[in-house]
Amino acid sequence: MPTPRALIVGTGPGFSASLARKLAGEGYSVALAARNTDKLAALAAETGATLHACDASDPAAVAALFGKPEAAEAEVVLYNASFRVRGPTIDLDPEDVRRTMEVCAFGAFLVAQQAARHMLPRGRGTILLTGASAGVKGFARSAPFAMGKFALRGLGQALARELHPQGIHVVHIVVDGGIRSERRPDPGADTLIDPDAIAEAALHAIRQPRSAWSAEIELRPWVETF
Amino acid sequence: MPTPRALIVGTGPGFSASLARKLAGEGYSVALAARNTDKLAALAAETGATLHACDASDPAAVAALFGKPEAAEAEVVLYNASFRVRGPTIDLDPEDVRRTMEVCAFGAFLVAQQAARHMLPRGRGTILLTGASAGVKGFARSAPFAMGKFALRGLGQALARELHPQGIHVVHIVVDGGIRSERRPDPGADTLIDPDAIAEAALHAIRQPRSAWSAEIELRPWVETF
Amino acid sequence: MPTPRALIVGTGPGFSASLARKLAGEGYSVALAARNTDKLAALAAETGATLHACDASDPAAVAALFGKPEAAEAEVVLYNASFRVRGPTIDLDPEDVRRTMEVCAFGAFLVAQQAARHMLPRGRGTILLTGASAGVKGFARSAPFAMGKFALRGLGQALARELHPQGIHVVHIVVDGGIRSERRPDPGADTLIDPDAIAEAALHAIRQPRSAWSAEIELRPWVETF
Amino acid sequence: MPTPRALIVGTGPGFSASLARKLAGEGYSVALAARNTDKLAALAAETGATLHACDASDPAAVAALFGKPEAAEAEVVLYNASFRVRGPTIDLDPEDVRRTMEVCAFGAFLVAQQAARHMLPRGRGTILLTGASAGVKGFARSAPFAMGKFALRGLGQALARELHPQGIHVVHIVVDGGIRSERRPDPGADTLIDPDAIAEAALHAIRQPRSAWSAEIELRPWVETF
Repeated sequence: MPTPRALIVGTGPGFSASLARKLAGEGYSVALAARNTDKLAALAAETGATLHACDASDPAAVAALFGKPEAAEAEVVLYNASFRVRGPTIDLDPEDVRRTMEVCAFGAFLVAQQAARHMLPRGRGTILLTGASAGVKGFARSAPFAMGKFALRGLGQALARELHPQGIHVVHIVVDGGIRSERRPDPGADTLIDPDAIAEAALHAIRQPRSAWSAEIELRPWVETF
Repeated sequence: MPTPRALIVGTGPGFSASLARKLAGEGYSVALAARNTDKLAALAAETGATLHACDASDPAAVAALFGKPEAAEAEVVLYNASFRVRGPTIDLDPEDVRRTMEVCAFGAFLVAQQAARHMLPRGRGTILLTGASAGVKGFARSAPFAMGKFALRGLGQALARELHPQGIHVVHIVVDGGIRSERRPDPGADTLIDPDAIAEAALHAIRQPRSAWSAEIELRPWVETF
Repeated sequence: MPTPRALIVGTGPGFSASLARKLAGEGYSVALAARNTDKLAALAAETGATLHACDASDPAAVAALFGKPEAAEAEVVLYNASFRVRGPTIDLDPEDVRRTMEVCAFGAFLVAQQAARHMLPRGRGTILLTGASAGVKGFARSAPFAMGKFALRGLGQALARELHPQGIHVVHIVVDGGIRSERRPDPGADTLIDPDAIAEAALHAIRQPRSAWSAEIELRPWVETF
Repeated sequence: MPTPRALIVGTGPGFSASLARKLAGEGYSVALAARNTDKLAALAAETGATLHACDASDPAAVAALFGKPEAAEAEVVLYNASFRVRGPTIDLDPEDVRRTMEVCAFGAFLVAQQAARHMLPRGRGTILLTGASAGVKGFARSAPFAMGKFALRGLGQALARELHPQGIHVVHIVVDGGIRSERRPDPGADTLIDPDAIAEAALHAIRQPRSAWSAEIELRPWVETF
């Protein structure tokens, strides 16, 4: 059996890096895409992953990415890109709002569309979307992020209803809480989400048999108000 | 007391036209905006409304619209523009997806932002957003509309949480069903929504005292499956 | 046309009393039911309503109530009874939990069932259920009320899906906030819901044409966090 | 380290039996409770589980159950009891409705309350509740089950918000689809949920670190309409 491939678009230092490590540990050949791959060299070295510069909100760039076998043959595709501006609605720059929707949702459509094109003939595959509590509840002074993450959730639901019966598993992951990182270490009582725990939940979803698929997963720290 | 003003953006033949008539009947001076105002002449004549050509997804155009007193002084603003493409996800043109999000959601942000800027100093006003069942449930083979209408709902929630405590009432209207029109007459058993009934619901929301505001209204025909 | 009848079960001093007054003002002949009708004499005198002692969680008592024309012929039936205990889950008396479910939900079933039996042959009618934010979100240290009001919402959804296509309009009203009353006057900035405003929303729902029915209405003060 | 204990209340032949086997395989000492334990002898023999006759909707019986170390010391408690009546609302026997609420929700409260009393001093534990799609969406001609499973979901949310910050993980599992069993074998295309897959999802939840807890898990077959 050939080595399975996985693609992560919008790779950053948190959940997506954890998933890259876990997938590599599970025997996947991993491809990491990001607008700027400069910061991914260490992760690539650690996981043996290939690096792919790609602006995920650019249709041509996403199409080019899927012209490569690292993306086209991926059994698992994670869309993890995100962008956020906050502030009173009247003070926001519309271009930032547009950018938020493009990065959070339009890019996810582009990647999911390409992934579906390649997965459907194989009749299997998993598409993961990194969501947020902002996709379930629109918060004050955060209209753009609500728009982007709600759109992503709507995309996830539409894709699940369309692609599940064709064998493609679509999973929208609601990350409800801050994620710990080097820059934002855990203050000591697990009040920030361990990115490895999100990756474990994603791995669990990837392994689910098709008789029992989750279309949405929610994760939050024990002390998080919701 | 001066005549109150109302603005409808994305005016079409259905709910928005009904609301224009009802608001005119209630004594409002109504302004109708649309990308193309050619088809609105009769409605304008009937309601005494002014017409304003405006591409609601263009920040400069929306800013220009609100440079006029008809928009700037509006006590009631309805964002009604919508655009939809459907089909299997793999067959969709990404530019249609982008357009769907821009018309359904980005334009709503632009209009709501301008409306909020003018309403906040007055400490009152109503912003209505025409949603759809697609904003609550993402349907198969309709990913773009799910993205656009989910984003609109997220916008509505974020605005309600931000603007309600400042006196601005934001109402997301979930229209769950087809709307009857000249081109799509009722087959005879009220299975299509009477646009006047949506307008009555909107008027009811406009009149709600601030101690009992609805942030979301849902309307569907009695025989609609949901 | 004969005088239309309305029935209110679980009549108290707030929304239900406001609705009784409004319905009487609209020409309805109103019947007020409550476990204890002693406190309803003034409201009955004011509205010309009849009084009916009835433990709404007792099947026999509800059946007996609907043996009277005041209930059997009602075009509008409101179930408004509620009961709440709060506290840490480990400290609660199970009998209080049972009582909460019986009053909030089981009684609603009994009344709705009887109402449906009488309305279905007429092919029309409105059943209103007084819900709460606790029916949409389960709050800490309030498990029983969450159970009762969630059950009520589930009942409302099931009834709407079953009875709407048969001409009976079912409306679950999510009252999200405190209601002002003589004992709990408004502190001055409309931070408590005016019960008349809930009654206006209910009247609006009663009048909705069947092409545009709301199955759920939410109301909250402008300053309420949600 | 002593053998960890697990308790399953409302043990049947599907998910709960699968979980019993998996927990036994993981080294748990398992206790199986049911109103009638006659059918559980084989499962007990297979898993080494103890059997406990208990009517879970009887407060005294549940209290007696937790008087035993098999329940009192359980680190994992699953409430799996369920009861359903269906049919047109007007034809239902109110006592069946009451029974549905008692078995689906009141019993869950009783068990969760006792479990919480014993888990809180230890500052850890997992309470699992077997829900259904009926707890998220109330279906026509199924009002009682909607009431019972909505109430269960409300309980789960209230408990999660109350107990998570005290170290007790509460998980409401939305089983959205039929479960395959000996009596209802899979027709051949994984259209019925494999009970082992639900048990795997439950095990995953049990193992989640507290920085990334799921309060709700949904599972459905790939071909299920939702």
